[in-house]
Amino acid sequence: MNPTEAQNVVKQKLTKSRYEHTVRVADTAVQLARKYNESIEKTKLAALLHDYAKCDPEEELREQIKHYNLPSELLNYNKELWHGPVGATIAKEKFGIQDEDILRAIYYHTTARAKMTKLEMIVFVADYIEPGRKYPGVEEVRHIVKVDLEKAALKVLANTIMHLVGKGTTIFPDTLFAYNELTKKWEG
Amino acid sequence: MNPTEAQNVVKQKLTKSRYEHTVRVADTAVQLARKYNESIEKTKLAALLHDYAKCDPEEELREQIKHYNLPSELLNYNKELWHGPVGATIAKEKFGIQDEDILRAIYYHTTARAKMTKLEMIVFVADYIEPGRKYPGVEEVRHIVKVDLEKAALKVLANTIMHLVGKGTTIFPDTLFAYNELTKKWEG
Repeated sequence: MNPTEAQNVVKQKLTKSRYEHTVRVADTAVQLARKYNESIEKTKLAALLHDYAKCDPEEELREQIKHYNLPSELLNYNKELWHGPVGATIAKEKFGIQDEDILRAIYYHTTARAKMTKLEMIVFVADYIEPGRKYPGVEEVRHIVKVDLEKAALKVLANTIMHLVGKGTTIFPDTLFAYNELTKKWEG
Repeated sequence: MNPTEAQNVVKQKLTKSRYEHTVRVADTAVQLARKYNESIEKTKLAALLHDYAKCDPEEELREQIKHYNLPSELLNYNKELWHGPVGATIAKEKFGIQDEDILRAIYYHTTARAKMTKLEMIVFVADYIEPGRKYPGVEEVRHIVKVDLEKAALKVLANTIMHLVGKGTTIFPDTLFAYNELTKKWEG
């Protein structure tokens, strides 16, 4: 599958607003890929497919998690976390994408994880800062990413944890592990 | 060891201000024990000994963690987390305390953990709300604990995570696991 095919697929699959978000994430991710020397083709593919399963009904996502033997732990957490792993699995099984880096960028784009690659961080940060995002703190991340991708990812993680705790929601452990890893790195 | 012996031991071991904090934690914990039907004797012992190792030098705490085969993961986190596990181990090895509930209340009083017992929660919350504590949010916890011990522990955990992320510090995974467990319980 090439980026043009991926864009057609998500255009048909997603709602209009979700598709427009997807295109903005892809544009933002490509800018970051240019800045940080990542493959443009891989970045486009990962960013275009990152929300492939986002508009699927909760029950369908639950079934896919079981069907594909994805970690059942996911089901104990917010359903907003399910579409990444499901989308990555469909990208592999249905679209034949074999590049593990692309698949992981889709898989972890919501939760993040420790040991993220450059591509994973690009999609993770681009999803947070694409021009349609308005929430508090986004402007600061847009500034930081001009200087350092890892520091930008850390700021996204910190903002996300604060936001989730502020509204009394659980935090997926991978998100904490990513936060701790980058915090330790920049402390030392 | 009985509570009177424990109080003498910590009076000799700790700085004046740390000893005074300890006595306030014990008084607060005993009030909570009365309210929530926990053993007063166990509560006093755990609360009096909770900061036994708090004033030990960093190097000594590090040595004790190695000497007692405590989880080496602790050494990758803030040194403020070390005195609980070390204190619990000394309570067992040196003072002959065998009650696992008391030992765990000392061990986990800083980080908390999932599946905390009533005694563990009492010491954890009392340490946060003793009358000498002034930080933002403490008054709200003092109110909540009049109604529900678990909800108070959850509020302490949420405040602690927000505080740590706010200042860019790592969060020990047990703290997140405790937060997630109680959040899920009170969501559902």
